[in-house]
Amino acid sequence: MKKQATPEAKTHMYVSEAVRTRRAVRHFDANHQLNDRELRSLLSAVALAPTAYNIQNRHVVVALEQETKGLLQAAAFGQEQVRDGSAVFVLAGDLKAHRRTDRFLRNAPAHVRQQMEPMIEDLFEGHQALLREEAARSAGMAGMSLMLTAKELGYDSCPMTGFDPGQVSELLGLDDDHPPLMLVVVGKATAPAHGRLGLLELGESVSLERFGNRTITGVVDAA
Amino acid sequence: MKKQATPEAKTHMYVSEAVRTRRAVRHFDANHQLNDRELRSLLSAVALAPTAYNIQNRHVVVALEQETKGLLQAAAFGQEQVRDGSAVFVLAGDLKAHRRTDRFLRNAPAHVRQQMEPMIEDLFEGHQALLREEAARSAGMAGMSLMLTAKELGYDSCPMTGFDPGQVSELLGLDDDHPPLMLVVVGKATAPAHGRLGLLELGESVSLERFGNRTITGVVDAA
Repeated sequence: MKKQATPEAKTHMYVSEAVRTRRAVRHFDANHQLNDRELRSLLSAVALAPTAYNIQNRHVVVALEQETKGLLQAAAFGQEQVRDGSAVFVLAGDLKAHRRTDRFLRNAPAHVRQQMEPMIEDLFEGHQALLREEAARSAGMAGMSLMLTAKELGYDSCPMTGFDPGQVSELLGLDDDHPPLMLVVVGKATAPAHGRLGLLELGESVSLERFGNRTITGVVDAA
Repeated sequence: MKKQATPEAKTHMYVSEAVRTRRAVRHFDANHQLNDRELRSLLSAVALAPTAYNIQNRHVVVALEQETKGLLQAAAFGQEQVRDGSAVFVLAGDLKAHRRTDRFLRNAPAHVRQQMEPMIEDLFEGHQALLREEAARSAGMAGMSLMLTAKELGYDSCPMTGFDPGQVSELLGLDDDHPPLMLVVVGKATAPAHGRLGLLELGESVSLERFGNRTITGVVDAA
């Protein structure tokens, strides 16, 4: 029996609470489905995350069907959260997005477009390693926006890079221009995340003004 | 005359509002300073963003002093937001973080540690391109967490990859294991972001179940 959130249910959460309480959850209710409003909110959170020079170098394949999630689970070394989550968001790059000025500059004033077009071509065209890195950065920003939005909607999430990219590409029909860079599973948690394995303190990962100047110290306020 | 937010001021914002209203702002009040509580909230938002296998492969250098921000501005092709923002967060990678199991697994039960240590070594050690990509993904997630938190605190932000990484490394003393991957400027906006240059619709960047199945369509609900 599939359970679906009622369309009128709308939850809110402050950014600070979502940031503090978001954890990677691995046990989800396999019978829970997202409703259409929730799915659109999550996809919008991806779409509204920034990208370098607004190139929007990403493509999302969202898997809702049990069959697709089962195939993705196999490509993710059998991890159960992929099967049991309500949705699996496959965040892929778009390594030719920078060429599509007709799309991402379509509302730009003519002089802005004339300025940006050669700059973007010069920066990205032919620079495959940079394009891939830029896509990973975009996937990271989009994934975080998605995970915090999921939290607000009453869901939990699991970000994953532990999967076979070739296998994921093959089963979803992704071409070489759209490499899968990250999976984000979203669903109704049935068990909390495990305890934190070791959260670095500020003094271990922060410098002030110059690298190595560890004068900002203290533990991080975490849930 | 430096203005500083009063320590007791505490603002809240829902995730959905922060996601919808966050834009890349380029004009900031050069006289506004972050207070200590705000700075710690922003650094905590970075620290709480997830990383693959919890390796926390990142290091933040935060620039608050006018001199540092001026140097960073020069390394970022003179862009004024770097000089005028209250803080510049230089999100660097940590390409040897995966070796520090003494840090990121310090609270892990012995059997978890014994399971994860060889897996992490096998996955990452010697795989320089993957380590760099993983660091970019981590920087992306951390940057998004930081920008949404800034929005909640009443600030705006500007994410940037337009800078000379060699120059930034040199002036901050970053070594080769800590490449700067992204800057995030945070400050009090004095002018709004420009209009959106071209936000892709869902049908342009989303597929359902299989790549190319563009059945989810519609415009994104954006501020």
